[in-house]
Amino acid sequence: MGKVAILLGSESDKEVMKGCSDYLSHFGIESELKVSSAHRQPDETVAFVKNAEKNGFSIIIAAAGMAAHLPGVAASHTTIPVIGVPLTGSALNGVDALYAIVQMPAGIPVATVAIGSAGAKNAAILAAEILALHDTGLKERLLEFRKNGSRF
Amino acid sequence: MGKVAILLGSESDKEVMKGCSDYLSHFGIESELKVSSAHRQPDETVAFVKNAEKNGFSIIIAAAGMAAHLPGVAASHTTIPVIGVPLTGSALNGVDALYAIVQMPAGIPVATVAIGSAGAKNAAILAAEILALHDTGLKERLLEFRKNGSRF
Amino acid sequence: MGKVAILLGSESDKEVMKGCSDYLSHFGIESELKVSSAHRQPDETVAFVKNAEKNGFSIIIAAAGMAAHLPGVAASHTTIPVIGVPLTGSALNGVDALYAIVQMPAGIPVATVAIGSAGAKNAAILAAEILALHDTGLKERLLEFRKNGSRF
Amino acid sequence: MGKVAILLGSESDKEVMKGCSDYLSHFGIESELKVSSAHRQPDETVAFVKNAEKNGFSIIIAAAGMAAHLPGVAASHTTIPVIGVPLTGSALNGVDALYAIVQMPAGIPVATVAIGSAGAKNAAILAAEILALHDTGLKERLLEFRKNGSRF
Amino acid sequence: MGKVAILLGSESDKEVMKGCSDYLSHFGIESELKVSSAHRQPDETVAFVKNAEKNGFSIIIAAAGMAAHLPGVAASHTTIPVIGVPLTGSALNGVDALYAIVQMPAGIPVATVAIGSAGAKNAAILAAEILALHDTGLKERLLEFRKNGSRF
Amino acid sequence: MGKVAILLGSESDKEVMKGCSDYLSHFGIESELKVSSAHRQPDETVAFVKNAEKNGFSIIIAAAGMAAHLPGVAASHTTIPVIGVPLTGSALNGVDALYAIVQMPAGIPVATVAIGSAGAKNAAILAAEILALHDTGLKERLLEFRKNGSRF
Amino acid sequence: MGKVAILLGSESDKEVMKGCSDYLSHFGIESELKVSSAHRQPDETVAFVKNAEKNGFSIIIAAAGMAAHLPGVAASHTTIPVIGVPLTGSALNGVDALYAIVQMPAGIPVATVAIGSAGAKNAAILAAEILALHDTGLKERLLEFRKNGSRF
Amino acid sequence: MGKVAILLGSESDKEVMKGCSDYLSHFGIESELKVSSAHRQPDETVAFVKNAEKNGFSIIIAAAGMAAHLPGVAASHTTIPVIGVPLTGSALNGVDALYAIVQMPAGIPVATVAIGSAGAKNAAILAAEILALHDTGLKERLLEFRKNGSRF
Repeated sequence: MGKVAILLGSESDKEVMKGCSDYLSHFGIESELKVSSAHRQPDETVAFVKNAEKNGFSIIIAAAGMAAHLPGVAASHTTIPVIGVPLTGSALNGVDALYAIVQMPAGIPVATVAIGSAGAKNAAILAAEILALHDTGLKERLLEFRKNGSRF
Repeated sequence: MGKVAILLGSESDKEVMKGCSDYLSHFGIESELKVSSAHRQPDETVAFVKNAEKNGFSIIIAAAGMAAHLPGVAASHTTIPVIGVPLTGSALNGVDALYAIVQMPAGIPVATVAIGSAGAKNAAILAAEILALHDTGLKERLLEFRKNGSRF
Repeated sequence: MGKVAILLGSESDKEVMKGCSDYLSHFGIESELKVSSAHRQPDETVAFVKNAEKNGFSIIIAAAGMAAHLPGVAASHTTIPVIGVPLTGSALNGVDALYAIVQMPAGIPVATVAIGSAGAKNAAILAAEILALHDTGLKERLLEFRKNGSRF
Repeated sequence: MGKVAILLGSESDKEVMKGCSDYLSHFGIESELKVSSAHRQPDETVAFVKNAEKNGFSIIIAAAGMAAHLPGVAASHTTIPVIGVPLTGSALNGVDALYAIVQMPAGIPVATVAIGSAGAKNAAILAAEILALHDTGLKERLLEFRKNGSRF
Repeated sequence: MGKVAILLGSESDKEVMKGCSDYLSHFGIESELKVSSAHRQPDETVAFVKNAEKNGFSIIIAAAGMAAHLPGVAASHTTIPVIGVPLTGSALNGVDALYAIVQMPAGIPVATVAIGSAGAKNAAILAAEILALHDTGLKERLLEFRKNGSRF
Repeated sequence: MGKVAILLGSESDKEVMKGCSDYLSHFGIESELKVSSAHRQPDETVAFVKNAEKNGFSIIIAAAGMAAHLPGVAASHTTIPVIGVPLTGSALNGVDALYAIVQMPAGIPVATVAIGSAGAKNAAILAAEILALHDTGLKERLLEFRKNGSRF
Repeated sequence: MGKVAILLGSESDKEVMKGCSDYLSHFGIESELKVSSAHRQPDETVAFVKNAEKNGFSIIIAAAGMAAHLPGVAASHTTIPVIGVPLTGSALNGVDALYAIVQMPAGIPVATVAIGSAGAKNAAILAAEILALHDTGLKERLLEFRKNGSRF
Repeated sequence: MGKVAILLGSESDKEVMKGCSDYLSHFGIESELKVSSAHRQPDETVAFVKNAEKNGFSIIIAAAGMAAHLPGVAASHTTIPVIGVPLTGSALNGVDALYAIVQMPAGIPVATVAIGSAGAKNAAILAAEILALHDTGLKERLLEFRKNGSRF
């Protein structure tokens, strides 16, 4: 099974994204967390994304607030699925991040989930659904999770 | 390779979603289009979604406008990935559909793309990225597509 | 007089919806509260709604936050009136729930009230107004309530 | 069976509200249309609403655009259910009307439906659902309507 | 000099509107405060407004939150100037009140000021500007106020 | 009776503001129209406003679109009442102008009316209401106007 | 005097941005137009920006619609000023582009101007203001432009 | 090197704008802070701006909340670059200030940055980028700042 990269724009995003790591762990999915801003460390971010697939990642989950370019920048440098999590933390409370992530122009999709902690968890579950297409063990854990009311 | 189901809330959504079918065809992905409103044909919709996986579908792309429940209703009845496309056509011009699709509560994700025609195309490309994780031919077509500026 | 079902998407919605139960009690209307998420317990939710009328319910009050599909899902499976209460609790502070409830497409109405606690109370009063069309005792209590400044 | 009053703020609202009259007719519900602005004819409006119940009306459907006070003003002068339809026609395209109708303070509910033509039709269907609680013939027509995909 | 009526939709609006009374006092303008909801005490509200002019009021300042109909209802029953103050206190934080006050249809104006405490004070200053058109003493106090940086 | 100045930010605002002039004429109020942008002709605009009162103007009606500073700039240089009319014509369709006009900080009020043509007319009626406080002939025309449904 | 690069996300942005080129020409500022999407040609875009300064550009004007990452991506790869122009063309009519451009996190600024054609022109004037800090001829043309009402 | 003027609409804006001063100091840019409301001290504000260039200022950073006219008013009275910082502090939480600053009409640009503290810092960095076009020492500090992750 492929690994999932969790890419954060800022150290301060770690707390809300712990829900993501916890859900991935629950499903037995290996993940790595990387903090690298699309704006403040653009070369490092691009290099990480370009090498993600050959480094064994199947999916990138990218979370950011404000003018949240991280998911879109990631998506523009890879063809593995990129899941975007808009975060709060600005005066616009995440609407800015939502629009900056979901409104990608034709050609480069980002699979966008809800703003904040619900989105952090759902990014992990969506990753599990994608990986479970070719992993029967994971599929069973996913079905079990659903049977338990989609909580753990 | 798994098939993709394109689920529409209304006949009138077919035009904008043609971009989705065209892109899927371009990538050589088999798809079926089904019109079934979450609200006006709820039982038929639920039955279609519940049987989707065993009928050979790997991914559901669901598009709807207004209080767009179709993607979320689909996601609640399956564990294959559901991609949601918010459509315009109301006084709120798709913001209603966007919020009704992307703001799913923790537990049941919908992979949301942009409002309208850009989203219709990106839903297909996202489906291709997911399926290409285990399909090297598709992966090559995807890389070719990217090399050509993500247009065809 | 018919009973009123109060359907909640989550245990955490109980506090704000206590205003609804209290108002129904004040009017002498029998109610039952049921927690069943449209997304996490879709089959249970649908079953409850499909049987609501024959189980003696005349009205369903459904409250939910975020991509609040619960009222619309309920409305699609019954022909008794469904009253929808949008709740806060997300980054969008209830605007997402409002749009996801009120913007129902033609064919399946949801009677939407205000976001949050005002809506919780008004859902009960609206239910009383509906039931009072054929209940003179309730009508009198409603008129009394109005005379007292619509508060108790 | 009680009659339904359709109250409009302006002659120009008649076109979009024809959908409402047509649906009421389809269900065999008697209705009367009255144009009376909450702002330009306040006394006439109040008088009409105060007498509505004794004049045989069971439900008022009130439609207005901009700072749409008509449904709320109606609701404050009667205890029969008031259904509010927010209309477009301003620079804010109906969001102003939606907020002015749905955000009623605790005590005086308005059953709000979608902005514009979908809301016009759904107001009629909601009225049918309410009246069908004590009218088995109407209930049958409503069930038939549902069976036909909630269209006619 | 005419008096100013301060009309509030709810007791809870008194605190923010104290800024209004204080500014009126500073300018030596006589005012009376009246709490009367447009929705919960419609007849009392209408009676107060209809008699305002003959009771010596030259201006009505009306403040309300949510679906804030009070200023518009007042304006529809008098031809003295009505100043509307949108208040916060709902999930929409005053945007609902702003739209419900400022978007009055052609024919019945409400002079709308800012949401909340800034608007409460500015309503008083606007009243002073109107009354100063025919009161040289007030005009001087207004000019003095301006010279002091429009604060006191 | 004092005159009313109609101040426009741009020649292109004349068409929608014709409704304002027409209503003022109907009420027999003398007005002068001046085009002077707060941004492109700031000195000319300030000079006009500073001299408005001694040039016989009792009220300024200022209309502008986009970042509509004209009404606020006018209000900061005079103590006669300033009525602001937010105009459409930008991508934000007048919401930008509305916020830039109505949200004046404490100290300097602008009497804001609706966006666009309804606001243009209501600015004139509001001016009439203010001037009628000391003009019995105008008061009668205003009462007549109201009796005719606030239209002419 | 340094040149100005006009960077567009799409061929279709050329029309609205002609206003930008025209204004730059009017001021005698040399410019080059480059179409390169941040998402569809990320490497080409980054390479262009990284070399901009040594290729003689002093300022980059970047225009894009939807999830408009182009200005922010440019800003992250250079230390010359980047001016961002949000464009319409999506269901959200440019609000998405505005938020995606202006809400840059601390560290990497983008000088944002108005949505659409006004912004296209103002980007050129802002560039002229910046370059005129060290160019007396340009300063004179700018003062002349202002004297003529900031139009040409 | 030219100095930077930091112009604030209110004493209460000093706290959030300390980030701006600190960043300017870090870059070795001389700055002066001036509190002068566009509305409450219009003449003083205009006089300060008109003399800014000859008093040695190369750039004005203007910050304001609500109907934030300060940056636009400044821009209308000078041809040096004006950077606008929208501030929170109203019921609309800075969206009002953002629209009132960024949506300047064609002819008079304001270089707008993010709402609140991120914008305060980015205004300083943008000023540094502009001044570094002709200051190699500053350019080096800017490059050093970037190398350190655009933080200090």
